[in-house]
Amino acid sequence: MRIVLDAMGGDNAPRAIIEGALLALGEYEDISICLVGKKEVIAEHLRGREYDPERIDVVDAREEIEMAEPPVNAIRTKKDSSMVVGMNLVAEGKGDVFLTAGSTGATVAGATLIIRRAKGVERPALAPVLPTAEGSMLLVDCGANVDCKPSQLRQFGIMGSIYMRTVMGVENPRVGLINNGAEEEKGNAQTKKAFGLLKDTDINFVGNVEGRDLMLGACDVAVSDGFVGNVVMKFLEGCAKALMSMLKDELMSSTRSKLGAALAKPAFSNFKKKMDYTEYGGALMLGVNGGVIKAHGSSNANAIKNAIRQARTFTQGGVVEKIKAELAAVAEKEAADRAEKEEKSQE
Amino acid sequence: MRIVLDAMGGDNAPRAIIEGALLALGEYEDISICLVGKKEVIAEHLRGREYDPERIDVVDAREEIEMAEPPVNAIRTKKDSSMVVGMNLVAEGKGDVFLTAGSTGATVAGATLIIRRAKGVERPALAPVLPTAEGSMLLVDCGANVDCKPSQLRQFGIMGSIYMRTVMGVENPRVGLINNGAEEEKGNAQTKKAFGLLKDTDINFVGNVEGRDLMLGACDVAVSDGFVGNVVMKFLEGCAKALMSMLKDELMSSTRSKLGAALAKPAFSNFKKKMDYTEYGGALMLGVNGGVIKAHGSSNANAIKNAIRQARTFTQGGVVEKIKAELAAVAEKEAADRAEKEEKSQE
Repeated sequence: MRIVLDAMGGDNAPRAIIEGALLALGEYEDISICLVGKKEVIAEHLRGREYDPERIDVVDAREEIEMAEPPVNAIRTKKDSSMVVGMNLVAEGKGDVFLTAGSTGATVAGATLIIRRAKGVERPALAPVLPTAEGSMLLVDCGANVDCKPSQLRQFGIMGSIYMRTVMGVENPRVGLINNGAEEEKGNAQTKKAFGLLKDTDINFVGNVEGRDLMLGACDVAVSDGFVGNVVMKFLEGCAKALMSMLKDELMSSTRSKLGAALAKPAFSNFKKKMDYTEYGGALMLGVNGGVIKAHGSSNANAIKNAIRQARTFTQGGVVEKIKAELAAVAEKEAADRAEKEEKSQE
Repeated sequence: MRIVLDAMGGDNAPRAIIEGALLALGEYEDISICLVGKKEVIAEHLRGREYDPERIDVVDAREEIEMAEPPVNAIRTKKDSSMVVGMNLVAEGKGDVFLTAGSTGATVAGATLIIRRAKGVERPALAPVLPTAEGSMLLVDCGANVDCKPSQLRQFGIMGSIYMRTVMGVENPRVGLINNGAEEEKGNAQTKKAFGLLKDTDINFVGNVEGRDLMLGACDVAVSDGFVGNVVMKFLEGCAKALMSMLKDELMSSTRSKLGAALAKPAFSNFKKKMDYTEYGGALMLGVNGGVIKAHGSSNANAIKNAIRQARTFTQGGVVEKIKAELAAVAEKEAADRAEKEEKSQE
């Protein structure tokens, strides 16, 4: 298996990316890694390191896409960027999965423009794994599609279910629809329709999930449009930060609680680690013709190693093929239902 | 000032409601309270208590609206419920503000059907005050309108700004639009249009606010449709619970951190108090022809007292009149702009 790595993307690139690649090579014997970026910079970071040269190769790319660049434009004009060159390798079948810690917008745009939609997929979605009190959940979509049709939400549910089953090993993943109430009749125009469509699939649809139950582990896959998903994902990040800062203020307000906090420090560190979602890997582009993983921009070497582990399981599990097959089955069933209805109406 | 209290609504009614009323009467000399509900039950709770009988009166109402009842139907059929009787008092000018800890749906439905929209308001909104790392913010709307037009979001911003200025004493409140990116061009079809409309008002519109900045105090008023607002509000509740439970698990995992947690207990209690949004009062119905406040269902006597304080400031500040005046000014300006444009196009 060949994993293509954007060596230039992310706050700590290329050091953390290359470091993470070497860690992963040590851990997983069945992978090889292709590092894409300025070859002399990559060579410099590899110099003096111990690794199997048969399992690392470098593909030169002279440009870089900056975080603030308009994504579609960046993908279209920077043909020699590490992102475009790397994605082209996957599109041409010269790599199994592309992994980057670079611009989210460019990753989404590039995945759609270069690697392209898988057959039967209406719109690819960006899906991060988020921590919950019970473990973790996949959020589909977190920003690739801000305006969504109900049928897209159904596909998000199906694709998310496949991912959690195949990569995260969750048996019969519970798929929930993020909504403003638990009852079936609750929701806006979009979610009310999506509810009916999701109910009619073979996945384990557990119905509407309210905001308060998301973090309490009410579902394994949380479905929403990219607008709501983006607000939720970033709100979680902000909440964790704000709550910890509020708690810290209180803990620092007396000598007694300061001492308590010092004693409990290892517990606080473990908690922080649990909340650090780079532990769970990056966000997936679900619904494109190949693996694309977006690691957090601030990823360190360990986060990159985790994302490589995820890329490996994603490829081994044949997620892309499974998505195509299950969506085709849904489309077939719908066509059959339509034909049957028409036949009846003509009788 | 006469505050009308739903004595029968909420998990701890009528005890906590009546207790809260007595606390408030002791604290604020310029209010009187009208308790609505089964008169013999209320009388029993008042028996033996010390209070000025001139400042409390009881209005009998024989029915109760349950939490799970379909709201509109409940308001239409239970004419003798404490909610309907109480709201009628305010609608008839026999009370300044109605306060309940009962069903949220029934409160929204009743406010709209009985107290009715204030002149110029497209749709009333339900607006809770939420804690942030910097203090608090008002969220408009948290669920009264799941599908919103951009012009409604503009009104939410204006109404929220008036509330924070008048009741919470925030000078020039910063109004933010909840969005999936900070840049002006970000958003879905709805928020992109709303951005332009909000920019064109006299309020202190600070632009788009991302999920991660909400809890960090990026704005005093957060504007969104009731779908997103509902998810955010409930997600905050769930996050706080989940994060504290995850932290607790870590703290209880070793003797050392257990000891630390015990020492830091007062700090944890203070933190919990800060996160308890009943401290900030209830959620406002903004945009109806009178004050309507929905206290949290689990309100204790102190939360009810806080909501009464809020009801008092709301009435003193003339929020309803201010909303009507400012929205009329916006409508006038729009009409003038339209007339000017038409004139120009005819030239």
